[in-house]
Amino acid sequence: MIRIAIDCMGGDHGLPVTVPAAVQVAAKFPDTCFLLVGLPDQVAAALKQARPANPAQFEIVAASEVVTMDDPVDMALRKKKDSSMRVAVTCVKEDRADACVSAGNTGAWMAISRYVLKTMDGIDRPAIAAAIPNQRGGTTTVLDLGANVDCSAEHLLEFAIMGAALSQSVEHIENPTIGLLNIGQEAIKGNDVVKEAAELLRASNLNFYGNVEGDDIFKGTTNVVVCDGFVGNVVLKSVEGLSKMIGSMIRDEFMRNPFTMAAGLFARPVLNRFRNRVDSRNHNGAALLGLRGVVIKSHGSADIYAYTVALERAREAVASKLLEKTSSSVLQISQLIRSKNTESSA
Amino acid sequence: MIRIAIDCMGGDHGLPVTVPAAVQVAAKFPDTCFLLVGLPDQVAAALKQARPANPAQFEIVAASEVVTMDDPVDMALRKKKDSSMRVAVTCVKEDRADACVSAGNTGAWMAISRYVLKTMDGIDRPAIAAAIPNQRGGTTTVLDLGANVDCSAEHLLEFAIMGAALSQSVEHIENPTIGLLNIGQEAIKGNDVVKEAAELLRASNLNFYGNVEGDDIFKGTTNVVVCDGFVGNVVLKSVEGLSKMIGSMIRDEFMRNPFTMAAGLFARPVLNRFRNRVDSRNHNGAALLGLRGVVIKSHGSADIYAYTVALERAREAVASKLLEKTSSSVLQISQLIRSKNTESSA
Repeated sequence: MIRIAIDCMGGDHGLPVTVPAAVQVAAKFPDTCFLLVGLPDQVAAALKQARPANPAQFEIVAASEVVTMDDPVDMALRKKKDSSMRVAVTCVKEDRADACVSAGNTGAWMAISRYVLKTMDGIDRPAIAAAIPNQRGGTTTVLDLGANVDCSAEHLLEFAIMGAALSQSVEHIENPTIGLLNIGQEAIKGNDVVKEAAELLRASNLNFYGNVEGDDIFKGTTNVVVCDGFVGNVVLKSVEGLSKMIGSMIRDEFMRNPFTMAAGLFARPVLNRFRNRVDSRNHNGAALLGLRGVVIKSHGSADIYAYTVALERAREAVASKLLEKTSSSVLQISQLIRSKNTESSA
Repeated sequence: MIRIAIDCMGGDHGLPVTVPAAVQVAAKFPDTCFLLVGLPDQVAAALKQARPANPAQFEIVAASEVVTMDDPVDMALRKKKDSSMRVAVTCVKEDRADACVSAGNTGAWMAISRYVLKTMDGIDRPAIAAAIPNQRGGTTTVLDLGANVDCSAEHLLEFAIMGAALSQSVEHIENPTIGLLNIGQEAIKGNDVVKEAAELLRASNLNFYGNVEGDDIFKGTTNVVVCDGFVGNVVLKSVEGLSKMIGSMIRDEFMRNPFTMAAGLFARPVLNRFRNRVDSRNHNGAALLGLRGVVIKSHGSADIYAYTVALERAREAVASKLLEKTSSSVLQISQLIRSKNTESSA
């Protein structure tokens, strides 16, 4: 059985989204069971209402507190020791669950996960990775998306290792290509950290493509794109902002007058197909990588469908042995670097 | 008269775009004349073909070399001393022109402009600024878009001063609001440079709004958004990449089969209006700010229409006294900071 702990209280919607989503995924995957963490009476009521096909796939785990979207990280970590977030991660720590999922406050979720689970051997900084749809019909795995604002070249190498392992296990790409986000493709471009990271990546056994630029994320030039968390977060938010603007402009234009509304009726099936292709819900579920456990972050505003996607990503990460792949990559690359250093000093 | 020097050879298309665009803008603005810089025979032929209404608005200025899109910056700067780029900037330096425009290689254009014109008093680093359309129907001025990969807090303050002056003069915004691009709105977010820049901005007499996130560029939360050139360039390219992907997906869906093509016919007027609203050609013409002269960079792939927009921006920057506004802001803010320092040390 694959066991997933859910912070049922987290996110903009909480129980009305998290519990029905779990019930749907449980019906689809009989090999998966869920630890539903939260205020026990409320979770029980939500579970009853969602009518699980097989109640044996669910266990309610009590937590007496809830981390809100506005709680400062420090408050979430130090004052709310019995929060549904904390209890969900602890289920992974104590091997009651193989993965945990929350749609709550990203900063708090990262801080609590890191505090409870600790980082893997050989990983200094955990990172946040998400799959962004690209023009090839696939996705580009981009990290870090905001966990680390000041990164060294070694950190970028760690992100590459973790991103490759995620792409291998969850996206089933055999030997994923890695791009280093930069402001030009030439090796002389960029700041010192990026230049040094490129050297480390070239010396590693990863499938390093070279520098890529912002538009390569959408061209799908490489399977994985690595950047520091400041850049990654700004890119992610910019792209979300542009998508929203374009969506609302298309709606505006079709709602302008009776003629445009009639045109909209004709075009609706086509526009719906287009919307499905760019629907970010299909790629919900960022991975918090580098921790001693599978931790997934759902978008805060996720609806039931989007939340099922995040739960399935958590399931897939466990089934495809994300953690084992990451640690064996870290080990291989650190041995490789050590042996090169020994050669060069010999 | 407003006098604009054009590097007629620059860009993906060169003469067939630059010269007809100049002829169109000259017809619209009888107070404007153009120095057409390039290989003189070729420029003369292109001008003749474009049939200017008033040939007195044009002067051909000879240059014997051309900087290509792939020329390394160093080669463009040191080996091609009689390039059309270099001669166009020199027209500004020698006060034969009030502004210069090129669609060529950005790195070379910045390096040559900086070398020939030098930076303004009080400005350490020139920056590249562009207007990005936002949801309010206006534009957000974003800088730096790639001239500076490692910035200090003082550089970000300089960018804010220059961005505000550009927004005032070219966009006619009286007291533009300034946002500092960050990964959260709270003052505690971000790296040390950004935190320090926020303090400098708060201490200045600029209309500082506070931190903004990537999506605020498109929400139009502030008139100006300031960031370092690495982040700005990556955001710009990402946004271009996403726009292209969305455009090609919409086309794909409407071209799928005869039914969707018929729907596309009905929807075409609406989709065209939408396309006009997001058409990046309407905002062509990035400004290279902080130099002792007005320097505009057109997109390399600009067509005639897009190039006329860039020429009109150059004209507007001269007419609305961009340079004078920038230097007087720099002076005011440096006096303000000096007087605060005197107070605090007294």
